[in-house]
Amino acid sequence: MADWQVVEGGVTAPKGFRAAGITAGLKPSGTPDLALIWSDSDAIAAGVFTTSQVRAACVDYCQDLLEEKPAARAILCNAGQANACTGKQGEQDTLDSASALAKALNCPPEAILIASTGVIGQRIKMDVLQAAIPELVSSLAVDGSDAAARAIVTTDLVLKSIALETQIGDRPVRIGGIAKGSGMIHPNMATMLSFVTCDAAVSPPLWQKMLRRAADKSFNQITVDGDTSTNDCLIALANGESRTPAITEAGPEADKLEAMLTEVCAYLAKAIARDGEGATCLIEVVVTGAMSDRAASQIARTVAGSSLVKSAIFGRDPNWGRIAGAAGRAGTPFNQAELNIALGDFLLMSEGTPQVFDRAAASQYLKQQAERSTSAMSQILLTSTQQANELLAGESQQTFERQAQSAESLAHPVKITLGVGGGPGEGIAWGCDLSYDYVKINAEYTT
Amino acid sequence: MADWQVVEGGVTAPKGFRAAGITAGLKPSGTPDLALIWSDSDAIAAGVFTTSQVRAACVDYCQDLLEEKPAARAILCNAGQANACTGKQGEQDTLDSASALAKALNCPPEAILIASTGVIGQRIKMDVLQAAIPELVSSLAVDGSDAAARAIVTTDLVLKSIALETQIGDRPVRIGGIAKGSGMIHPNMATMLSFVTCDAAVSPPLWQKMLRRAADKSFNQITVDGDTSTNDCLIALANGESRTPAITEAGPEADKLEAMLTEVCAYLAKAIARDGEGATCLIEVVVTGAMSDRAASQIARTVAGSSLVKSAIFGRDPNWGRIAGAAGRAGTPFNQAELNIALGDFLLMSEGTPQVFDRAAASQYLKQQAERSTSAMSQILLTSTQQANELLAGESQQTFERQAQSAESLAHPVKITLGVGGGPGEGIAWGCDLSYDYVKINAEYTT
Repeated sequence: MADWQVVEGGVTAPKGFRAAGITAGLKPSGTPDLALIWSDSDAIAAGVFTTSQVRAACVDYCQDLLEEKPAARAILCNAGQANACTGKQGEQDTLDSASALAKALNCPPEAILIASTGVIGQRIKMDVLQAAIPELVSSLAVDGSDAAARAIVTTDLVLKSIALETQIGDRPVRIGGIAKGSGMIHPNMATMLSFVTCDAAVSPPLWQKMLRRAADKSFNQITVDGDTSTNDCLIALANGESRTPAITEAGPEADKLEAMLTEVCAYLAKAIARDGEGATCLIEVVVTGAMSDRAASQIARTVAGSSLVKSAIFGRDPNWGRIAGAAGRAGTPFNQAELNIALGDFLLMSEGTPQVFDRAAASQYLKQQAERSTSAMSQILLTSTQQANELLAGESQQTFERQAQSAESLAHPVKITLGVGGGPGEGIAWGCDLSYDYVKINAEYTT
Repeated sequence: MADWQVVEGGVTAPKGFRAAGITAGLKPSGTPDLALIWSDSDAIAAGVFTTSQVRAACVDYCQDLLEEKPAARAILCNAGQANACTGKQGEQDTLDSASALAKALNCPPEAILIASTGVIGQRIKMDVLQAAIPELVSSLAVDGSDAAARAIVTTDLVLKSIALETQIGDRPVRIGGIAKGSGMIHPNMATMLSFVTCDAAVSPPLWQKMLRRAADKSFNQITVDGDTSTNDCLIALANGESRTPAITEAGPEADKLEAMLTEVCAYLAKAIARDGEGATCLIEVVVTGAMSDRAASQIARTVAGSSLVKSAIFGRDPNWGRIAGAAGRAGTPFNQAELNIALGDFLLMSEGTPQVFDRAAASQYLKQQAERSTSAMSQILLTSTQQANELLAGESQQTFERQAQSAESLAHPVKITLGVGGGPGEGIAWGCDLSYDYVKINAEYTT
């Protein structure tokens, strides 16, 4: 059973963190575009980055820094320009961003991690960024998480934020996270970013291992294998401000912390999948009976990533043939005579044989899950300038309500369950349906 | 230089082949749905089949037959029911189909290869099929290729057919092919099929090797890695009726024959890619400078299969960022500082640096290629019942014109060229753009 509770505050829920988000003027749209997360004390830092051969300058910068020393005080994120494919000048811009912020924060430049998102090939507007730093730093606040979450998005429709609390020994420990991304068949070109904060004390190698495993069970399960953009990154800071004993090796405390970290990442990953461009529902694919967890995860990912399955779900069509087809081509062997497929509570295929089921009711299930999710989503859309301004001003009296609606939008996935044999392997993946609007958004996105 | 010429006749262009296509009543739509290709003499046979774990009964049947003995007299193909996920009964239906046809053709059942396409989970309507066999056999004709091509399609918009002729020694040798498939992000659930005939004499192992390599350079380059449906198959017969000396080992004759076979397969593969659901143009991605042909092909396939690239092309947006992003995540290493990207004649990126180019002209290039291709496509759409009836009646006086329009629809691809370094590896892949209609077709396709 989950041994934690949801709390408010996102990345500033853990002790000793502040955050800010402002409108610097980097985006043509005039919406918030510069975010900062700050730890009052030195934090250990772990990161998982894009595996693409084409990487933004900030990705190489962070990887090099963390390899040298897995510690940081701040994460700076600009939205609008990806600073990818910008050559030597792009690298210099990243260094200059860190230097300018370090001066304002009175910390060494190497304590600052940098993330960028936006249009590939465009340099950061450095004059705009540098001019905005004083306001950004003075906006840092203990309730600044939503403002930061608002300032890292590009095409996202909703904020993605979560914080959980558990007990380690007799003291509360919290992990918070924010994310941006509007994941579909592939992560949107403008990147998937996630920043996680934690007030436990953990050893750096253990924290890095936990984060890698958590990413494999969350963010890596919302994309088809190998898909990654130029700027993808997940950064996690842990500052020890909960004053719990340091967790330095495997054991019950480590397990508890890792489970909570994984839940934070899974929640944010699902929120990204649900926010897929033009999507009307979240799809959750659960695979059991595979030879290994790896094999099960691969099958789950392939089904969740299949355009034909996604189109069928959008058409409210309980099309088990497409599910079977996607599972079959996932590149991992199983015996088709052992294949079971369920959609919600409807058993569509048993031991490789199609079952008689109530097609109208199964279609109604698809419709109903989409309606529930869409109704909750409609409450939290990032459409109003007033709302953006409220967030930036820290007027977060509506935070709890927004958080509840956000959770509600993920609580009714279209659930596809596959059994592929008698093996011990299990895996889960998430996706969303494929609608007309996906094409519209991606055909009309201006470069 | 290509050492062949285009001739009419599709799979019946090579000597000693006849073909037929009729409306048996298998499809609810009442369009042609049963095809037969027949060799007057014993032919050697090679096949390349789906690698999916979920396979139609006919796929297992053909694979087993060809492993036992790589020879055949006939290919029977039914459209409407895929006969996949139909268990033991499905296997029996395949055997019964072969037996019934063998009796009518007076040949052994094991000389008949079977292919099916249509809805997964549905058995072939055996009574309908068996009742139609006499008419099918009596329709066999030396100009029956278009009728057969018409009877194997499901959602295809156009017929896919080609025949080429070259000289081996002092005698003409021909290879013909027909195909069905409407390939998009993934091959359509209702399968990619291709049947190839040849009147050269080749040794079975060499013919199988040639076909495998030709498939790798053609059909396997219109899908993203590993994608395959339950029923995919490519079957090639060679009957030796050209009376040329048997080709039994590597050498200039073998090379010539393989080059022509590869061209036939590449033409049909491009036609499938162009006929992608809702597509408005063909996309051709050429990659050079990779470490190996394999690496180059993988990058080409990833770019051609990227939904973001496809959406941008549909939006007539010369979005090099998405091209670079797709290349980067293809899973094969290269130095991003050596990346060159061109769209048609427009150099978009050189040595990893974005170039200044005439954006409006590049967009116009995309528009113009699509208009040319769409205009040719509109001449050959499979919309008229009259046309279907003409084809079935063998009234093929318009064959040549249709063939020319079909070639024209492929002659103006949107061309994306990538250089990824100084290596010797080269590869080509094909795809099409992603339009609103893709979603419409796949959301509304009735299971």
